[in-house]
Formats: sequence, C-alpha cells, structure tokens
Amino acid sequence: MSLFTAHDPRTGQALAPHYADATPAEIDAACRAAAAAFPAFAALPVERRAALLEAAAEALLALGDALLVRAEQETGLPRPRLEAERGRTVNQLRMFAAVVREGSWVDARIDRCDPRRTPPKPDLRRMLVPLGPVAVFGASNFPLAFSVAGGDTASALAAGCPVVVKAHPAHPGTSALAAAALRDACAATGMPAGTFGLVQGASPEVGRALVLHEAIRAVAFTGSYRGGRALFDAAAGRPAPIPVFAEMGSSNPVLLLPGALAARGAALATAFATSITQGTGQFCTCPGLLFVPAGAAGDAFVAALGAALAASAPGVTVHDGIAAAYASEAAARGALPGVRQVGAAPRNEGAPAAAAPAALFEADGDAFRAQPRLAEELYGPAALVVRWRDAAELAALVAGLPGQLTGTVHAEAAELEAHGPAIHALRDRVGRLLFGGVPTGVEVAPAMHHGGPWPASTDARFTSVGTAAILRFARPVCFQDAPPAALPEELRDDNPRGLWRRIDGSLTRDPVGVAG
Amino acid sequence: MSLFTAHDPRTGQALAPHYADATPAEIDAACRAAAAAFPAFAALPVERRAALLEAAAEALLALGDALLVRAEQETGLPRPRLEAERGRTVNQLRMFAAVVREGSWVDARIDRCDPRRTPPKPDLRRMLVPLGPVAVFGASNFPLAFSVAGGDTASALAAGCPVVVKAHPAHPGTSALAAAALRDACAATGMPAGTFGLVQGASPEVGRALVLHEAIRAVAFTGSYRGGRALFDAAAGRPAPIPVFAEMGSSNPVLLLPGALAARGAALATAFATSITQGTGQFCTCPGLLFVPAGAAGDAFVAALGAALAASAPGVTVHDGIAAAYASEAAARGALPGVRQVGAAPRNEGAPAAAAPAALFEADGDAFRAQPRLAEELYGPAALVVRWRDAAELAALVAGLPGQLTGTVHAEAAELEAHGPAIHALRDRVGRLLFGGVPTGVEVAPAMHHGGPWPASTDARFTSVGTAAILRFARPVCFQDAPPAALPEELRDDNPRGLWRRIDGSLTRDPVGVAG
Repeated sequence: MSLFTAHDPRTGQALAPHYADATPAEIDAACRAAAAAFPAFAALPVERRAALLEAAAEALLALGDALLVRAEQETGLPRPRLEAERGRTVNQLRMFAAVVREGSWVDARIDRCDPRRTPPKPDLRRMLVPLGPVAVFGASNFPLAFSVAGGDTASALAAGCPVVVKAHPAHPGTSALAAAALRDACAATGMPAGTFGLVQGASPEVGRALVLHEAIRAVAFTGSYRGGRALFDAAAGRPAPIPVFAEMGSSNPVLLLPGALAARGAALATAFATSITQGTGQFCTCPGLLFVPAGAAGDAFVAALGAALAASAPGVTVHDGIAAAYASEAAARGALPGVRQVGAAPRNEGAPAAAAPAALFEADGDAFRAQPRLAEELYGPAALVVRWRDAAELAALVAGLPGQLTGTVHAEAAELEAHGPAIHALRDRVGRLLFGGVPTGVEVAPAMHHGGPWPASTDARFTSVGTAAILRFARPVCFQDAPPAALPEELRDDNPRGLWRRIDGSLTRDPVGVAG
Repeated sequence: MSLFTAHDPRTGQALAPHYADATPAEIDAACRAAAAAFPAFAALPVERRAALLEAAAEALLALGDALLVRAEQETGLPRPRLEAERGRTVNQLRMFAAVVREGSWVDARIDRCDPRRTPPKPDLRRMLVPLGPVAVFGASNFPLAFSVAGGDTASALAAGCPVVVKAHPAHPGTSALAAAALRDACAATGMPAGTFGLVQGASPEVGRALVLHEAIRAVAFTGSYRGGRALFDAAAGRPAPIPVFAEMGSSNPVLLLPGALAARGAALATAFATSITQGTGQFCTCPGLLFVPAGAAGDAFVAALGAALAASAPGVTVHDGIAAAYASEAAARGALPGVRQVGAAPRNEGAPAAAAPAALFEADGDAFRAQPRLAEELYGPAALVVRWRDAAELAALVAGLPGQLTGTVHAEAAELEAHGPAIHALRDRVGRLLFGGVPTGVEVAPAMHHGGPWPASTDARFTSVGTAAILRFARPVCFQDAPPAALPEELRDDNPRGLWRRIDGSLTRDPVGVAG
C-alpha cells in the first residue's frame, strides 16, 4: 500500500494522518457505483438535483472552521482568502441549483410534424441529457473552489452526472472533509448510492486508472499542461474515447499601449504587481507576459513594476514541488540569451522550501520570438516584459502566441484603431479579452468563459467557470414521433416547467400549438 | 504522381479523366490559403456570408444535368435519388444562410457590470466566434449532401470558417464540379482567396496530411469507423490537438414489441425491407439490428422480412470496395455459431463487382451477446434479427449495445411501461430515438440530432445534420469591460440585429438597459 502525507508549505512539516493511494479495486468500485447510480440519478426530478446542490452548500458551511483550518495548513493560503474561496464554492453550488431549476440550459428544441408534406415531416424534439459518470480532478491552487466540491463537481451533478473525484494529493485532508460534506448531502437528500465518490492518491496511476475506467464518460481537470495532456492522451487512446476538459493555464498576455501608459503607468505597475503575486502567482490567469512599448514611459513602468515585485512580501506555493519547479524554470529563463532579470524579491534566510519570491524579466521582441519557451507559462509569481517598437511588431508578436485563457488590453480609446491588428490577433488566441483591469479574478456568471485555444485548455468550446460549465457534461437526444408518455417533461406539449424552447426554430415559452 | 480513376459501379468501367493525389505542397498551399483567408472571412458582415451560401446553392443548380449525370456514373445511385439529394444540398446551403441571418446561434450572453459591488462586478459579454479553417471529408454514400458542398461545408462556412475539402476518391468528377460551383460562388460574392479549397486523393496520406496541417482547426467526416478513428487519432496526436466530428455509422437497433407486431407485423416487414435496402443499405441510419420477440408472430415477421429481402431488386454499392467488404463480412457473420441465414437475394449472373444482394440473419439472445461482432455495423443491405424471450432479456440485450446514431421502438401505447427499462437503455445509447417509422431519412431541421455515443460518432455532443451543426465550428469568446468600439455588433448595447440574447441570465431581444 502506497502512503502519502500532506505538508504545511509554510513550515515543511508533515500533517497527520497518512493517506493511501486508492487501489485498483477501490477505483473500480467507485466507478461501478457511479455507473450504477447514473440511471436513477439522471431520472430524478430536477428539484431533487437542485436540493442536493443546496444541501451540499449547507454541508460545506456546516464543516465550519475545521475545513478552513485544515485547508490553511495544507495549502498555506491565508485564512481570508480561504473564507472568500469557500463563499465562492458555496455560491457555485447554489448557482447550479438555480440553473437546474430554471432549466433552459437543456436547449429544448421542438420541430412540429407536417403529415401533409411529401415525405411526411416527423415530429422532432431534442434536449440535452447527461453523459454519465464524470471524473473530476481536484486542483492544487484552489483547494475548495476547483476541488472536491468545486465548480466541476457542481456542474456535473447539476447536469445529472454522478461524480468520482480524484483528490489532489497536496490537500487530502481538506478533500476528505469536503467529500464527507457531499456524502452527507447525498444521504440527506436521498440520492442513489454512488452519486458521489472520492479516491485519494499521490501516484499518477490513480488518476490514469480513473480516466481509463469504462464507466467514466467525461473528465474535468484544472492543472498543469503536462498533467492535462497526459489525461487527454489517455482518454483519447481508450477503446471508446471520452472528452477531457482540462484547463491547463496560460501566460495571459497583456498589451500596454502608449496612451494608457502615459495616463496611468504608475498605477498600472502597482496593479500588475498585485495581480502577479496574488496567491503567490498560482492563479491560472496570472498575467505572465506584458507587452510594453520601447521608450522612456515603458522604461519607467518596467522599473516601477520590478521595484514593486522586488519589494513584495514573500509567499509560499501550495506545495514545495511548485516552488522548486518555479525556481528552476525562472533561473533557466533568466539565463536565456537576451533575457534580463529586472527585479526579484530576495529569498529570506530560513524560508521554507515552498517559498517563491517574485521576479520580473525583460526581453526585446527578437529575443522573445527566437525562444518559444518564453511564451510558455512560468507558473509562479513572475512575469516577462517584452518590449516592442511599433504597432506592426506588436501585432506580429501577438500573432505568434499560443492559445491563452485571457488577454488584456490597456489602451486609450484613441489608440484602439491603430492597434486593431494586435487586438484582433489577441482575440483569436484567447478565451477572455479584457479591456483594462487585471485578468486574475474570474467572475462566476452566465457570460464568463474560462478556457481558451490549446494549450490553455483541451477544448476551447467549453468553460470551466460560470453557468455554461454545465454544457460540458451533456449531449443532445432527439425524440422522433414520441408518444407523450415517452417524452421528458421538458419536451411535452404543455411545457409544464415554463421553459424557453425553440419551436420550429423560434424561441418561446408557449406550449406547443398545432402546426399552421 | 499517383493517379486514380473513378469507376461506374453499374458496369465496372473506368471513367475518364484520371485524377492525381494532391501533393504535400498542394495540401500545404490549400491550408495556408485558408488560414490567410480566415481573418478577413470571419470579419465579413453576416449578410455577406449568407450571400455566399445562397450563391453556392444557385451555382450548384446552375451545373444542371452535368452534375447529376456525372454523379450517377460515379456512384450508380439512380437519377431521382440524386435529384432529391441535390434538392437537399441546396436547401441546406439556404438554411444555413437563414441561420446566419437570424443570428441567435452565437448564443450571445451579457452580464451587466455592478461597480458598487465589492469587488466591482465587471461587464461581461460572450458570443461564439469561428474556430478557423475546417477540413471536410466527402462521404461516398451521399455524393452531394455529405460531400463537397454538403452540410459540413455549409455549416463551417456559415460559422465563418474557411473550408478545405478532401474529395472522396469514388466520385472525384462530381467533387470537381461541385468545387467549381463553390469557387464561382466565392468569386461572385467577393470572398477572400482561400475561403474554399479542394484536394483530391485516393491515398489515406492526403487526408492525414490535411488533418495534421497546423492551419486546420477542426475536421468533419462521415464514413467508416476505421476511417473516422484514424482521423481522430491523428488529430488527437497533434502538438495542438483539434476536434474531429466523425459520424461513423451504426447498427441502428429496432425494438419490435409484441403489440406492434400483432397489430401490423406484415406492414412492418414491408417497411423494414424497404428501409434496409434503401440506397443499397448505404445509409448511416440503415436498420441493421431488429429485436423481435420469440413466438409465432415474431416467426411470421422474420419469414416475411426474409422473403421480402430475398425478392428485393439487386442494387449496387457506390464502389466495389464496399460490396466486397459487405460480401466478406456477411459470409463471416452467417458462419458464426448460432447465426442462421433467413433470406438472401440471389447474386445475378454477370452482376458487376459492386452488386450487393440483400440478406437477413437471425440469432437468439445468447448467441448475440456471446459475439460482440454481431452488434457492429454490417455496412450494406443486410440486417440481423435477434430473438428475445421476455422484457428482462430485451433490456439486457439493449444495455449491452455500443453507441448508436438511432434507435427505433415499435410499440403499442399499453406496452411502453412494461418495456420501460429497454426503452430507457436504448435512449442512453442513441442520438435519436424513434417511435414508429424507420430510421432512414434524416430530417434537416433545428431539433434534429445526427450523431451518437461512440462508436456512432466521435463527439456525441454535436450533430452533423440540422441547424445545430454550425455549433461544431465555433468557440466562445468573452469580452470584459470592452469599449463599444471594440465589441462585435452582436454584443452591442443597442442590439442592432435584434438578436435573442441572455442578459443577466434571462433571454430577451431588448437592448441592454442600465443595471437595476
């Protein structure tokens, strides 16, 4: 039996108890239980599913301080941040309860029959139905909101899919607590056994076995490119491949245009220093690439940002493996030709292994283009400033970027047009395009899109944040000439739930009338 | 240079001229041209895209008899069928013009800002944008509707994606004619060069090179499981994988329940004989698996169906490779333990190599379950009858089926409940569930879903037929705090196109008001 232990990244101390890698038999049992639960869970009235999600929110809150204390120990994230994250997690569960109740996410479509047509036109009614059991991978950087009871689990349950979570090995105790809350909620609301399951594991084999299990029909993951790609490859190689929704982070490029820099360069330096170091740089949307114009205003911005980062309070990453990878990659990039280190926070005497001091690098456009590694995410509290000479060079630099979760433009209104090509190229490479502000902070809302072209995520068509996240776990079924008794209530003539539906191509909440 | 020639499957005669496999340089040029066209094509006003689709429909019609004559020679499909198929193809192009004009397919979502909230809530506006150049593979069985100017091309162009078509080598002349029509339409409507391209090829290397080309962002395919899986694997193995929408056919199981059999067994035998032999069994939705109850009524149905198939007029497949694979696989299945050949049309003296006589096989549930090969599609005018003893056995048989495009239930109202488990299991394995009728004939409509769980298609979440097919070729982009000048018109406050949009979660055609 392979055992592992969480560590407090602030001290390096091991945290009792030991956890064991789930055995193949345990993984199989969790997946089989989910498969067995699926038909009954999917067939429950939507009110029951909404009640489960709301009960899960309550159960998570009912864990009280125990959850926050353990999460703080296992991740080193400060208590106020964890309180806010718990609030977000609870709100996500409640939001998906509301999505399920409102019901229009099923995209109901009804085409009325026309028996007089040659050939006769059939009656067609289509809606989304759940895919089946979903494997959710807890992320290390958000131990509550993107972990056991996070958005992936909430949206999969909302869609009608049982969930088996693979806990992140950096916070197994937090995961066990959240899982207990979810199990309590399942029991309290009378869910079928197997609706929710958890497997622990520090070995990649645990996650791999989960993704390869025949009963699993989709995978949700937030983490590194390497981890996401491995799961994607495993799922694509199955006898019957399944979709993998992996959000793998990105460099989140920022275009700083001269007018914006002239108007508020100092404020921008402060804002980006805060954004880069937020959560010790462990946000998927951490702005890691800043395109700054050549010249004095740009020089001043870079100097101010470098100074702010050098003076920033030292943080710890959620486990020391992240800090080690960050230190090694930061050193390697700083040594690349044409790359200068502008500012770096000092590494304090006696700092724990998980400490990750902020750093700022600078390169010109030629050096950046010559070394594609510089465009890849450097996970941690660091950024690279790329200096550009003119609008054409900026557009070319942006056009060479890989896919991104976000792109940010700081511009005065008058300079948008002259930089149209760069902004358009940025739009084509991102899932979210910001004008002003910083990319960290992902609003949980219907219009949010958190995902982007490869390698930011494995499937740019779907979001992992916001109400649309539910669409990852469903597929359409079309009923042709079905008798009323065989139709789900969402597709019945009388529209008992008052849903928005597309009847003969037009959106309406009316019942189905007789074809004209 | 590798040359190939089409053949008339009715006679085996080669049809001039020779066609050459596209060279790597030609494939690269077509893909680069599509990539170069993409920004300009995607940025055109939607009215221009609609005009292109309508011009393509006109240009296809303007080919007149030449197109139908060549298609008949290359496929052996009868003239009236090809006329109907041309009508469908033209209607699809016009339908997508209407979809683009109506515009709500972009799923516009607007969440208004709230600067008073802590932290301030940003303004978020999200819509679908095109993915980029799409590779479309012509299918052999529908030389017009699922080929060069078929639904895949129409929906990709409608989404704003340039298209490179890989012509099916069984109908290169038909493909060249349709491609000329599309090029004419592009020229007449002033499209950017590279908006549409065609590559010919009989070697799998041509298609593979297309799928692996960096500029290609999605793939649409209709054909065999082997072909679809190869493209899926190639696309998944790319440095930056891309989605493959492969519709790979299925066995399209039919549940015949005792009441329906008693009420109209003879009529059902006739209807299914027609459906099985339609297009010489080359419809993706050909009903190849019939679950018939044990007993006298079932015996009579099987005898009648076998007799009807034995007496059916001999057809040819669209190329002799299909007939050869059909003959070989039918012989192999007939020789499996527990499989009886019930009826077979004779092979006429001097019949061409592409002739494919109809055949009916029968097995009991145990033999069926013991040999998974029997559940796989047998492409051609054949079906397997599986005899079941009771509702429990029927449900178990259905639960063991792989994913399907369609499933069909013939039942009297009174027997639906007793067979609920079988019907529910069928629903979970299909993209379209029919009550009555035959699965051949796929209505082109908003509520259609043509696709199903693996191995019926590579992505059960998307359809290749109907208006929703456009959703395959788009991804969301979210604009955060964008100035009006940087917003697409679909997301502007004043809603100039009068689109249905989701504002703060609620559907409306109103302009954006001030947050309450």
